[in-house]
Amino acid sequence: MPKTIAAFGEVMMRLQVPGFDLLSQSNTLNYSFSGTGVNVASALSRFGHTGYLVSRLPDNPLGDAALSSLHRLGIRSDYITRGGSYLGLYFLENGFGMRPSRVTYSNRQESSFNTAPKGTYDLEQIASGIDAIHFCGITLAMNDQVREHMLALARAVKQHGGLVVFDCNYRPSLWGAEGYVKAKPLYEQMLELSDIVFMNEKDVMLTLGRKTAAKERIDQLYDLLPQVAADYQIKVLAGTHRHIHGDNRHSLQGFMLKKGAFTFSEKLTFSVHDRIGAGDAYASGILHGELSDYEPEKTVNFAAAAALLAHTVSGDTPMSSEQDVFKAMHSTAGDVER
Amino acid sequence: MPKTIAAFGEVMMRLQVPGFDLLSQSNTLNYSFSGTGVNVASALSRFGHTGYLVSRLPDNPLGDAALSSLHRLGIRSDYITRGGSYLGLYFLENGFGMRPSRVTYSNRQESSFNTAPKGTYDLEQIASGIDAIHFCGITLAMNDQVREHMLALARAVKQHGGLVVFDCNYRPSLWGAEGYVKAKPLYEQMLELSDIVFMNEKDVMLTLGRKTAAKERIDQLYDLLPQVAADYQIKVLAGTHRHIHGDNRHSLQGFMLKKGAFTFSEKLTFSVHDRIGAGDAYASGILHGELSDYEPEKTVNFAAAAALLAHTVSGDTPMSSEQDVFKAMHSTAGDVER
Amino acid sequence: MPKTIAAFGEVMMRLQVPGFDLLSQSNTLNYSFSGTGVNVASALSRFGHTGYLVSRLPDNPLGDAALSSLHRLGIRSDYITRGGSYLGLYFLENGFGMRPSRVTYSNRQESSFNTAPKGTYDLEQIASGIDAIHFCGITLAMNDQVREHMLALARAVKQHGGLVVFDCNYRPSLWGAEGYVKAKPLYEQMLELSDIVFMNEKDVMLTLGRKTAAKERIDQLYDLLPQVAADYQIKVLAGTHRHIHGDNRHSLQGFMLKKGAFTFSEKLTFSVHDRIGAGDAYASGILHGELSDYEPEKTVNFAAAAALLAHTVSGDTPMSSEQDVFKAMHSTAGDVER
Amino acid sequence: MPKTIAAFGEVMMRLQVPGFDLLSQSNTLNYSFSGTGVNVASALSRFGHTGYLVSRLPDNPLGDAALSSLHRLGIRSDYITRGGSYLGLYFLENGFGMRPSRVTYSNRQESSFNTAPKGTYDLEQIASGIDAIHFCGITLAMNDQVREHMLALARAVKQHGGLVVFDCNYRPSLWGAEGYVKAKPLYEQMLELSDIVFMNEKDVMLTLGRKTAAKERIDQLYDLLPQVAADYQIKVLAGTHRHIHGDNRHSLQGFMLKKGAFTFSEKLTFSVHDRIGAGDAYASGILHGELSDYEPEKTVNFAAAAALLAHTVSGDTPMSSEQDVFKAMHSTAGDVER
Amino acid sequence: MPKTIAAFGEVMMRLQVPGFDLLSQSNTLNYSFSGTGVNVASALSRFGHTGYLVSRLPDNPLGDAALSSLHRLGIRSDYITRGGSYLGLYFLENGFGMRPSRVTYSNRQESSFNTAPKGTYDLEQIASGIDAIHFCGITLAMNDQVREHMLALARAVKQHGGLVVFDCNYRPSLWGAEGYVKAKPLYEQMLELSDIVFMNEKDVMLTLGRKTAAKERIDQLYDLLPQVAADYQIKVLAGTHRHIHGDNRHSLQGFMLKKGAFTFSEKLTFSVHDRIGAGDAYASGILHGELSDYEPEKTVNFAAAAALLAHTVSGDTPMSSEQDVFKAMHSTAGDVER
Amino acid sequence: MPKTIAAFGEVMMRLQVPGFDLLSQSNTLNYSFSGTGVNVASALSRFGHTGYLVSRLPDNPLGDAALSSLHRLGIRSDYITRGGSYLGLYFLENGFGMRPSRVTYSNRQESSFNTAPKGTYDLEQIASGIDAIHFCGITLAMNDQVREHMLALARAVKQHGGLVVFDCNYRPSLWGAEGYVKAKPLYEQMLELSDIVFMNEKDVMLTLGRKTAAKERIDQLYDLLPQVAADYQIKVLAGTHRHIHGDNRHSLQGFMLKKGAFTFSEKLTFSVHDRIGAGDAYASGILHGELSDYEPEKTVNFAAAAALLAHTVSGDTPMSSEQDVFKAMHSTAGDVER
Repeated sequence: MPKTIAAFGEVMMRLQVPGFDLLSQSNTLNYSFSGTGVNVASALSRFGHTGYLVSRLPDNPLGDAALSSLHRLGIRSDYITRGGSYLGLYFLENGFGMRPSRVTYSNRQESSFNTAPKGTYDLEQIASGIDAIHFCGITLAMNDQVREHMLALARAVKQHGGLVVFDCNYRPSLWGAEGYVKAKPLYEQMLELSDIVFMNEKDVMLTLGRKTAAKERIDQLYDLLPQVAADYQIKVLAGTHRHIHGDNRHSLQGFMLKKGAFTFSEKLTFSVHDRIGAGDAYASGILHGELSDYEPEKTVNFAAAAALLAHTVSGDTPMSSEQDVFKAMHSTAGDVER
Repeated sequence: MPKTIAAFGEVMMRLQVPGFDLLSQSNTLNYSFSGTGVNVASALSRFGHTGYLVSRLPDNPLGDAALSSLHRLGIRSDYITRGGSYLGLYFLENGFGMRPSRVTYSNRQESSFNTAPKGTYDLEQIASGIDAIHFCGITLAMNDQVREHMLALARAVKQHGGLVVFDCNYRPSLWGAEGYVKAKPLYEQMLELSDIVFMNEKDVMLTLGRKTAAKERIDQLYDLLPQVAADYQIKVLAGTHRHIHGDNRHSLQGFMLKKGAFTFSEKLTFSVHDRIGAGDAYASGILHGELSDYEPEKTVNFAAAAALLAHTVSGDTPMSSEQDVFKAMHSTAGDVER
Repeated sequence: MPKTIAAFGEVMMRLQVPGFDLLSQSNTLNYSFSGTGVNVASALSRFGHTGYLVSRLPDNPLGDAALSSLHRLGIRSDYITRGGSYLGLYFLENGFGMRPSRVTYSNRQESSFNTAPKGTYDLEQIASGIDAIHFCGITLAMNDQVREHMLALARAVKQHGGLVVFDCNYRPSLWGAEGYVKAKPLYEQMLELSDIVFMNEKDVMLTLGRKTAAKERIDQLYDLLPQVAADYQIKVLAGTHRHIHGDNRHSLQGFMLKKGAFTFSEKLTFSVHDRIGAGDAYASGILHGELSDYEPEKTVNFAAAAALLAHTVSGDTPMSSEQDVFKAMHSTAGDVER
Repeated sequence: MPKTIAAFGEVMMRLQVPGFDLLSQSNTLNYSFSGTGVNVASALSRFGHTGYLVSRLPDNPLGDAALSSLHRLGIRSDYITRGGSYLGLYFLENGFGMRPSRVTYSNRQESSFNTAPKGTYDLEQIASGIDAIHFCGITLAMNDQVREHMLALARAVKQHGGLVVFDCNYRPSLWGAEGYVKAKPLYEQMLELSDIVFMNEKDVMLTLGRKTAAKERIDQLYDLLPQVAADYQIKVLAGTHRHIHGDNRHSLQGFMLKKGAFTFSEKLTFSVHDRIGAGDAYASGILHGELSDYEPEKTVNFAAAAALLAHTVSGDTPMSSEQDVFKAMHSTAGDVER
Repeated sequence: MPKTIAAFGEVMMRLQVPGFDLLSQSNTLNYSFSGTGVNVASALSRFGHTGYLVSRLPDNPLGDAALSSLHRLGIRSDYITRGGSYLGLYFLENGFGMRPSRVTYSNRQESSFNTAPKGTYDLEQIASGIDAIHFCGITLAMNDQVREHMLALARAVKQHGGLVVFDCNYRPSLWGAEGYVKAKPLYEQMLELSDIVFMNEKDVMLTLGRKTAAKERIDQLYDLLPQVAADYQIKVLAGTHRHIHGDNRHSLQGFMLKKGAFTFSEKLTFSVHDRIGAGDAYASGILHGELSDYEPEKTVNFAAAAALLAHTVSGDTPMSSEQDVFKAMHSTAGDVER
Repeated sequence: MPKTIAAFGEVMMRLQVPGFDLLSQSNTLNYSFSGTGVNVASALSRFGHTGYLVSRLPDNPLGDAALSSLHRLGIRSDYITRGGSYLGLYFLENGFGMRPSRVTYSNRQESSFNTAPKGTYDLEQIASGIDAIHFCGITLAMNDQVREHMLALARAVKQHGGLVVFDCNYRPSLWGAEGYVKAKPLYEQMLELSDIVFMNEKDVMLTLGRKTAAKERIDQLYDLLPQVAADYQIKVLAGTHRHIHGDNRHSLQGFMLKKGAFTFSEKLTFSVHDRIGAGDAYASGILHGELSDYEPEKTVNFAAAAALLAHTVSGDTPMSSEQDVFKAMHSTAGDVER
């Protein structure tokens, strides 16, 4: 039974140097429009649900292009308002092997989304029309105005009985000096409101400032996550452990804590084509599992396979259908499909 | 002593999404013209023989482009007739790592080749001008009219003392439900006429419906292929065993059964750039060995190296000269040639 | 007050050689998805209405790409069904100066749209949800099955009080020998059902077989169109007269017959970048004027300016907003907008 | 005798959609780095002088790319400092025929140049090392901090006996409501400091608020410019009159007021490939004439020909050598040079 | 009745900057392989004849690419030998409007063709297999060795009763100082051997050093060409008069002197896309007319239309079929062909 | 304390087929300008020094493009003279896996650099303005005239107390038959003049003709290099040992002999994107270490990391800053930097 899900978040323009050139070597860029909200709304559309984005775009050719692109990704735009002047954007130079990829941001504080005035979004209309809403820690890092929209929307959805989903997604560069201190109370507010949260042991230690005597990653997880689940009454806590190999391969294992029990996915190892947005694919997979009442084991493995596929697809936004993910869960590397 | 070889088969337009994008992400396609016959005629030209294609192309700009492309590949077009309205075509989306490549076909039943009327090809002229002719199981899957051309041509060549070569190439999607049942009598007709056949143990079991008690691939091969060689009086039976690794590498071992004895190539393991058409490169290598009176060991290793190189070249059609293949047979990965 | 309009028609993949190369010179194609219905539904969306396409797409990667593309163009896809195997497609080689552009079609009779079985479209649901529906003479040329869908849908919309729009769009190459004879009864059936019709004096003479003593184009128009309007009780008859200059410029004048009175647009002369689809832009402009209760003079000039802009935009599908068209109606060639 | 000239101004990244697509149709951009200062410094380098840019660039990959690009254009970067976080950028969609080009800006107020703190530029070092400096009215529109840099630098150069050049370049969109009122005192300050000024009769009326009884453009010029030259003791006042034709051609006539006498160039009519930056080519031509002690007639015709060529070259920045301009001054359209 | 024609000449690699960029702005080149001989042999193939090239190519990847390209153009390569080390090449920067195109050559004296040793070409075999051979004044400018091949081949063809065709094609930059003096005796040698010659009044005055009292181009033609025809017993003398307009259009009129009578084509005026190679298209048209026994009037108009079309096609090499040229002879600018 | 370094060498145009196509498959090339001198001067600029190139470029559009490109790479062009007619160029076809890359050269003997007449370079001015100069064995292979420039420049720098650096870089294909015999006396002359030399045990054995009883590479190194250092009084001898794996990865270990002691870098293993120019990155790293008075261990590891990064960057020329190299020395494969 397909659900209706909204994601609240900024639309970013991604400007990527083709191939492996640097900005100072090339003269061409490929562009697309993405963002955590975009990725989640699109991924859930491809899994059969109706995905809305709640956001604000400038009323100019860049905003038009972003809107066309969201439509192309299968996202419903009824809750997108137009106004403001700018679109956040970032430049991506692909790394190769030992040379890491580089991201250079424009000033997103001035974007239409981050300057949306009070009353921009019709909270009642949105909250009454959806089954769940997704928020992201990146948005939380922006400014008071955006945080107010975020919290108001979370409260409205909660009141209407909708599910509130929060991906911690702490980005140190966005919070600046003393970032964890600034972030903690805001994260706590969001956790109070959330039903499903994406977070791992490191988030708990750094963002919430909790301590553990455990040394190993896995032991820290077992120690800390149940505390958080209990303290904030969170139904599902999920996340991944990633290991980066030197030869362009990553390993990924998903986990999920529900009703006090941890479930782990198989540990997947795979070649990486485009790493950005893979975390959103994982989150979308968990959400899909929960919205579809899958067993936890099916849910984490579905989410991990969705994340794997997102690493093999160009662009930030996952492109796999539910069927593609099922196929990837059960198959090994195969020959051409013809 | 160079020989004159014709290949009978359809020319397909290949429309490939550049890079690793999906059709729903991109707006550009690279195109080329290929097909089993094209690949074999071109490969043999590069090995020093004269390669003809026997086929039919529409008399429109697409047919003109296909013809120019065949010339570019070194193929002689004297036996190509023009007529009909359409060219078969397929779309190729490149896979990456665990995400498989996808092929989407247009309706090739309506193509100029597959609607060629009786009398399209001058069988006498063709048969009297060549040393050998190559046919493919894909063509056999098309329709009665094409099969008639195919069998008539095979018979004419046989009558003129030419060599008849047949590559089983069974494609389940082309034969539909009950495919093996439909295919069996047609394959048997072709085997009766053939001197050199490309086939492995799986083909024997599925297409010819033969059974074996052996469990291992290699034992099945040893059990079944000599039966086929004997029953249909086939001089050379050859094929490959392929293994697909998860990290974009394949392993390939060629084999050949001649005068009752099996010969195996070294098992080659290599990175894959473009997998399509590599089987045709192998077949061309075997043919070249036979036409040049190589010893079986040299022939299978030449064919395997030709197949390896075809995996490293863009497009369906092999591009390696005889010298390139010899170099690949005897070398390890090397530095830039400058 | 925005309206809800559907267009019934085939989605075609356009494969265009970049620049001015021929298919036999290039190796790259740009692709997009269009068709009269696509163009009209998209243009009306950009004018502020809600535009649906009623069509059928294959359930494969080509169909997915077409669907994404329709979304990108702002078209609602609720009335699109998936099924069948193929998508109609055509190749476009750009002309230059005296060298004309060339279009080469694939076999569209086998397309998902043209093989849609009975019951494919939910006529009741569609007819009850829209204010108007648009049909095209190209669809009428296809086959009986498609014509049945077309007429049934027209009748259903008429019954629900919706507006039926028909663009004659007679394409000789699609009707073959004796085309006008075959077409006449079918065109008459559509005219009986239509409220707004796109047609000029040539269509009346050729398709409906009517005669006039007038020699001049304009006199023929004055003589013939009022007859058709009267005989079939058509509210609005509209069309254009085009003149092609040698230097890549065209001249265009729109006309409209309503309540017995002709209204003509200014005669526009302009450089042409992409001619295909400009007729659909004109039709969309007339429709927009009618749906918005513009005066005839405003309507024809709006439609002519929309057509002009469509000649300056890449691709078949109009990209101009209502505001863009208004600006073009009132301006002369200007400097960069910055 | 080559001179040393600096230009003070912002470096902008230009992101241009290839061909005639809109941002909502394409997925690729070509980028380059330009700005009035960049264009003037580069043009003068190509005329044989040494051209410096005085500016500030972020210390990130975008700033690196901008710097590489300035070097590529032959500009000396000794007076460029690194700091701040952002680079101003604009998107360019090419118009076609009657459809105008569109420019969409990012937020340049936050750029490294526009946030340069006090003390960013070593005024003494710059002023003592150059013969002339060029300023632009676009910079004047930015903010107080930038204007302070601008005026301080103009004063320092004047003190060291260098030539101060000012191009009025009033851009309404940058000054906002009541722009002319805000701009007037600032323009007056710059005029007080300037030796060579680019301005036409419209600038005088709008920016300086002067009135004239003359109706014709040329009469207004004859009335107003001598007043400005006298009041601000400006040695050379120069500018152009442009007329835009409907068929992608522009007409341009340069003028120059020196020692009380007007000199006009021939009126040139030509096809336009890339209009942006052509005004900077004209200004550079006038500067070159003055720095080289050309007669006024030679100077205006050189400048007009330089402007003409700048319309035929891709990108904002003029690419013509002194020899190229001389050739264009004396030739008619010619055959391939081979 | 199709004929067999050979052309003797160098294959050049053309490296063209895409669009209107300069070499110092771009980082990409499009390449193709051409030359007068290539263009003529290819054009005649498209008119239904069998076209051979007599030339020499290096035995390296560049030579392989050139050979593939000749095949693609429909040229037979039986008389092409492999050897030497280099391929001549030139860079082409497209002009725009008043800015002329620029051609920069590599050192072609070291090319395989220009260093071909004695005995490279089997004169007897070639001369006995063809109906006509085409030479070009560019080849004559190279060096003694090449000139020897040229003259020997012309003599051999003459002996076997074949037609000798010579296009004067004097290029000042290739002959250097005192070029006309050096060229005269060599041109005279070629004229002695030729049946069909391409030349106009300017060639006669400059290359042959003849004088005339006539002032007008047309009068000079009437005065000088009959003298040349008589003195060297040339059956057909043909050429064109070209006028270059400022707006990217050229005008062209062909002429032909046969049996003492001049015939002129219509004067054609048209937009130019790619000017290089259009002269070869004209020559091929005249040759085709002569080989097909057309009336002079049909021949010159065919040749002029072939030249017109060559200006509208990308690349040096004509791409039009006989049918395309007939269509262009009889049509005005038309709509899309679909 | 940044130093001033010049490099003497030819600028080559690199014409690279994009992707993995062969020259006979593609129609596009990417171009850049490089050469050992270019690479070293640019790399040292990025490490904070001032890098000059001493060379000669043609005064045509190719020379202009090369000069722009050198500027873009951060190289100072004060010691570059213009003259001659040609630029050396080479074509690069990328290999894949077991298929090696191929380089095809044009005739560089005719290049502006290789035909520079006596007096081209102002030896005094250059020698008095720099701290060090870099030479390469490729230049030594050219011709007597170039060798004279090379030796004269080396002597002048030595006289002014500058450091002379020589990279042996023996290329068999450039020296032809009996190459080592021809090369030996010339290499000896350079070694006499050099302070820092790049060379390994193979160079000593082949180029200098010295023998060793040692069998292992490392033992040969320990035996031979100290002899050379002693005989020619070389302060620093450095080089690398490379091992090429079959899966597109190379291993590299740098070594350095100074004051009688060998220092080795860590052995690095990494994926290769663009192998050409990596040796120049290593040499630049050693030079940077020596010019910055690093300890030998820091120097070799810096150089090895610089070489590693050069393998991951497009084009011949290293693009890494000092900071990039430090980061690579201390890190493992990492996630996106954002």
